[in-house]
Amino acid sequence: MKVKNYKDVELKTESAAKGAGIRWLLSDRDGMTDMAMRVVEIEPGGQTPHHAHPWDHQVFVLKGEGRVITEEGAQDFAPGAAIFIGPNEKHTFHNDSEETMEFVCMIPVRATLDLNQ
Amino acid sequence: MKVKNYKDVELKTESAAKGAGIRWLLSDRDGMTDMAMRVVEIEPGGQTPHHAHPWDHQVFVLKGEGRVITEEGAQDFAPGAAIFIGPNEKHTFHNDSEETMEFVCMIPVRATLDLNQ
Repeated sequence: MKVKNYKDVELKTESAAKGAGIRWLLSDRDGMTDMAMRVVEIEPGGQTPHHAHPWDHQVFVLKGEGRVITEEGAQDFAPGAAIFIGPNEKHTFHNDSEETMEFVCMIPVRATLDLNQ
Repeated sequence: MKVKNYKDVELKTESAAKGAGIRWLLSDRDGMTDMAMRVVEIEPGGQTPHHAHPWDHQVFVLKGEGRVITEEGAQDFAPGAAIFIGPNEKHTFHNDSEETMEFVCMIPVRATLDLNQ
């Protein structure tokens, strides 16, 4: 068992993003073998990189309202939204609200080995 | 891409639990191949079954304060807590607060095939 508050985990800025950072809550560094849990934070007007990767995302939105944009188009979201982005689907999250956006972002742990945690 | 609000997903009661239910947000039924996302809700004074299973849990607490109890002991938690329960670790979540507890609960999708979604 591990219990930690997300605010106690360092917020790392994402150099490829505009006003966005990430907290790595649970990953291979904690002994996870299946899934990694992060919280992504985006400032008002900020966005994550418009990029694709071979693993899927599962997102749960905690705070802020915005849009997720893929090649299918844009969909609005608000707190309480569960969002799935498929493997190799190009995507970006935009914060269109006046508050810092926060969402839980889950990825398979095998994907974390190449990432800057 | 899929976007859905958790409140639009049916809350199923857990017969083995006391005052607890679950919403299956993303699972193999949605084409997920790695991870399944659920929201668990526990009424004030309620608890999830004291049980174990061969897959791990990763939890992010949205609302409510309580305790997670394993054979290691009890740990308090509050909104914003990230909680990891390991494979085969016997555990139960208790809601000690006056509001309905809500937490995101992630499991590997292979575990969902035996569950009543």
